Amino acid sequence: MTLMREEIFDQPAALERAWKQNRILVREVARKLTSFKPELVMIAARGSSDNAAIYARYIFEAYASLPVSLAAPSLFTLYRRPPNLKRAWVIGISQSGTSPDIVEVISESAAQGAFTLAITNDPESALAHAASIVMPLHAGSEKSVAATKTYTNELMLMAMLAAELGDDNGLRVGLERLPEAISSALKLEDKITKIAQQPIYHEAKDYLVLGRGYNFPTALEIALKLKESAYIFAEPYSSADFLHGPFALAQKSLPALLVGASGPAVPGLLDLARKLIERGVEITAVGDDQTLLRTATPNGAALPVNLQGIPEALSPIPCVVPGQLLALHLALARNLDPDKPRGLNKVTQTY
Amino acid sequence: MTLMREEIFDQPAALERAWKQNRILVREVARKLTSFKPELVMIAARGSSDNAAIYARYIFEAYASLPVSLAAPSLFTLYRRPPNLKRAWVIGISQSGTSPDIVEVISESAAQGAFTLAITNDPESALAHAASIVMPLHAGSEKSVAATKTYTNELMLMAMLAAELGDDNGLRVGLERLPEAISSALKLEDKITKIAQQPIYHEAKDYLVLGRGYNFPTALEIALKLKESAYIFAEPYSSADFLHGPFALAQKSLPALLVGASGPAVPGLLDLARKLIERGVEITAVGDDQTLLRTATPNGAALPVNLQGIPEALSPIPCVVPGQLLALHLALARNLDPDKPRGLNKVTQTY
Repeated sequence: MTLMREEIFDQPAALERAWKQNRILVREVARKLTSFKPELVMIAARGSSDNAAIYARYIFEAYASLPVSLAAPSLFTLYRRPPNLKRAWVIGISQSGTSPDIVEVISESAAQGAFTLAITNDPESALAHAASIVMPLHAGSEKSVAATKTYTNELMLMAMLAAELGDDNGLRVGLERLPEAISSALKLEDKITKIAQQPIYHEAKDYLVLGRGYNFPTALEIALKLKESAYIFAEPYSSADFLHGPFALAQKSLPALLVGASGPAVPGLLDLARKLIERGVEITAVGDDQTLLRTATPNGAALPVNLQGIPEALSPIPCVVPGQLLALHLALARNLDPDKPRGLNKVTQTY
Repeated sequence: MTLMREEIFDQPAALERAWKQNRILVREVARKLTSFKPELVMIAARGSSDNAAIYARYIFEAYASLPVSLAAPSLFTLYRRPPNLKRAWVIGISQSGTSPDIVEVISESAAQGAFTLAITNDPESALAHAASIVMPLHAGSEKSVAATKTYTNELMLMAMLAAELGDDNGLRVGLERLPEAISSALKLEDKITKIAQQPIYHEAKDYLVLGRGYNFPTALEIALKLKESAYIFAEPYSSADFLHGPFALAQKSLPALLVGASGPAVPGLLDLARKLIERGVEITAVGDDQTLLRTATPNGAALPVNLQGIPEALSPIPCVVPGQLLALHLALARNLDPDKPRGLNKVTQTY
């Protein structure tokens, strides 16, 4: 039993904790923001937390009407030329809360008069101390180098904030169903183990991971897991951006994972699946859309996720799970230790 | 002679045209922005133009103090939930000016009361008609599928706007030196042709491309050229983000290209080069920093670019050129047609 598997399977309970223990705090942050009236949101993060920041971009823009900018930390640390953030809500997301560049973005923003929020698994970290409000992840200790339950908890907190700021009942109701949806996605493990043992996947050096809209960050996060755990050159793309150049990479027997939930992103994914199949790409499909699941090729697989009662905007939380399991089982099939990828430590200090 | 090569070599003249023909317009836009007083900039673009948008994020935040957000076009087109952009300066960048999703971002922003600017090679395009001001690229006709001179001209216009908004003489003086710096970078062609013919590069399926700060978008753009022209799985990363997970990909004989100009980004790149060399990665270095150039490994190469009188913030314009030439010559060494990559058209319509 690896730590990574244990932490993947702790996700339903971890989400439940995040939801219960932050409900009051989320309302308090929303109330303060209503009086601060931010013109924009800026989010600073690295690695998996940066993928959570990209998810936040979609859900805050769509549900809270706030434009979102992703921080370029080097402008704060290396160049000392930060933008004007007086009217901004600035969020730092970091599991450990110790990365000096993310701490610096929050300190500088606070000094400028921005409204600052730290989202971290360690409420006593430097990041937590730099921000005016701390929202703990409540994920419990995460020991595997690859982030899993801290990632889904980060998404959960972003979605809770969006639901409150946008006063959206569809999101509120959907949030309560997420632990169950993740539990159902975890049942795909046997099927995923079998995929990982097929030579075409087990020996793959390269991989495509494609999504659009709310599930574009899901593609980014699954690709990052495949890179760090299984050492695969996994290329993540929005299905729209992929057509602007990278489509030239599509070739016979290349494995691709397409992720999408029922909704307006599906037609573009179906069109892309058709183009990829023409070039001989092997498709694995993740989500709840039957038409998309049916694009899976004979050497690929359909990985259905039950999203009943869950709006598309929340689907990235359960939909990342089959990708986490795929990275884990590809690592195991390759005799790698998913808990300790070569060259990585759990805490990465960057400036 | 390929069209791609012709267009790469047209860059000094194309930059000169963009600079001369937009000087008055850039001042006019800056004047209008001073009275509009935007709270933020939002930029919509795809492919190479999206890499130009990421460059703009750095230079506008650093020199004009304006926070920059990159648009998620699906929120405008598929989901119909755009953010509030009343106080935003919204820029659409597109060579052809025809991609429906980029046009829609500009139309919706204009309808909300934003200050809209189109940057395109076709001043009669749909994008140009949707925006309140059009800034033509003046790159001349670009026929190769891979964008080269339109990319550097897009960067040039962004830098001219930043120099004007930030009233920065260092940038203004540097801008005039760019055509000459590009001409000097073009002289690296023979050396690059020889690199491309070595089996280790010519047979490489994967590649790392790393930069930081202003040259992070250069890494993104070089990787995109390698993907579309030479079908290489080229992974672009900021040297800081690369340490948060993807470093696990580093292994013996993997080629890596490091790009950086003298300045605060160099120490981090040097530290990363050392870690990569420990794992047996082959390093090619691009830029003007002698210490960075000396990290090139025996099977790699040092590609010096003359950046005299050019501030680091403008270095991405000449520093992308060796990468364009590398993509071109790797494509030729592999008997591929760089002007017509498989599966791509010059104009890509996405929604």
